[in-house]
Amino acid sequence: MTVTYDGTEYAGFQVQPGQRTIQGELERAIEELTKQKVRVVGSGRTDAGVHALGQVIHFNTDSSIPVDRWPLALHTKLPKDIVITKAEEVHGQFHARFDAKEKIYIYTIDRGHVPHVLMRRYAYHFPYALDIEKMREGAAYLIGTHDFTSFSSSKTEVQDKVREMYEITMIQEGPFLKILCRGNGFLYQMVRIIIGTLLEVGEGKRDPETIKSILEKKDRILAGRTVPPHGLVLYKVNYK
Amino acid sequence: MTVTYDGTEYAGFQVQPGQRTIQGELERAIEELTKQKVRVVGSGRTDAGVHALGQVIHFNTDSSIPVDRWPLALHTKLPKDIVITKAEEVHGQFHARFDAKEKIYIYTIDRGHVPHVLMRRYAYHFPYALDIEKMREGAAYLIGTHDFTSFSSSKTEVQDKVREMYEITMIQEGPFLKILCRGNGFLYQMVRIIIGTLLEVGEGKRDPETIKSILEKKDRILAGRTVPPHGLVLYKVNYK
Repeated sequence: MTVTYDGTEYAGFQVQPGQRTIQGELERAIEELTKQKVRVVGSGRTDAGVHALGQVIHFNTDSSIPVDRWPLALHTKLPKDIVITKAEEVHGQFHARFDAKEKIYIYTIDRGHVPHVLMRRYAYHFPYALDIEKMREGAAYLIGTHDFTSFSSSKTEVQDKVREMYEITMIQEGPFLKILCRGNGFLYQMVRIIIGTLLEVGEGKRDPETIKSILEKKDRILAGRTVPPHGLVLYKVNYK
Repeated sequence: MTVTYDGTEYAGFQVQPGQRTIQGELERAIEELTKQKVRVVGSGRTDAGVHALGQVIHFNTDSSIPVDRWPLALHTKLPKDIVITKAEEVHGQFHARFDAKEKIYIYTIDRGHVPHVLMRRYAYHFPYALDIEKMREGAAYLIGTHDFTSFSSSKTEVQDKVREMYEITMIQEGPFLKILCRGNGFLYQMVRIIIGTLLEVGEGKRDPETIKSILEKKDRILAGRTVPPHGLVLYKVNYK
């Protein structure tokens, strides 16, 4: 299933005891619908406050509800800020996380002098001058296969921090700067630390070339700050 | 000043005892900033739940704050869902309501089979088939100078219900149908009743020609239902 959500009111995707999470709401809604307990597997976690327009989940069920009816059937059971946009039947070996080939995240920066009031939950207000060309120069160093230790939270638990970044594209739409990151996988807080570092490049606080040395030194402390989660959307997950 | 707001959490623009209103918040914020009580005059009321990207207000103050500082100064005093985007000094006779020459409203309809999760507060989800050409035919009867009694709430208090509609334009953007209405003035709930009636035309429940006879009969009961407020934005007010 393709799942969209407004992450504002959630403690992230993954189930956590005593917290309101996307996975928790999905499992509750599916159980209410089918009277069966299920375990939902997502393409990956999203942090507290991060949104999704293209999260993908899988689960096993022997429910007789026709697959195309699921989005509307779950719509009646889910809160308004979680919406299933698509349901498909897949082979028994399909795995939402292991089979993901690439992910696309979009981070939105509101560059207006005051925040756009209808986008305040979905864009990070950053009204300072930015040299976008310098940011593009900096981003170019991140393309390709690298150890992204410097650009992931020091709390990251995975051992292998090598990922391939295929694309970082910046598009200005009205007052909004949208930064699209496409790669084969992302570490904990990786997009938000990349954006925070690129903003420092854009402000002239760092040279674009420093991105290269930050990558090489594999030390989180050298990269920029982590920008807030509310500007981030998991836009799409592509599969083999 | 140009005022933008997310109307979701408000009982409308106009001050009402015991209710949270846009005007009330503006007057409170200006008083906090200047230590002077002011009366804010808007270009017109907006109903509970209606948003604005271009509401205009005026007020008198002898504050020494430079005019271009006001948007940011008020930003620190206002809730996050009300943002001043522009402040200008005007001559003493300027009146936000009486001097308004025309207003532009935009109503957004989400035609997706399920709601777009990040637009659910700003678009009315209406997943049924619509014949947009028929809606355009119907809307054409509303252009020009008419008595809009049939398209205003029976609670409307003004006597003169003649208004001139300059333009009704429909644009499909992805799953969203945006209907722009531009006229010299709008009666209570007028846009929402027009949209509700045009949707019935689009669904094939009414012929486009019926709009003409509804106008002529000056009876609210003949027009369609009032669509919900959350799809409506006061987009712009133009002055002489």
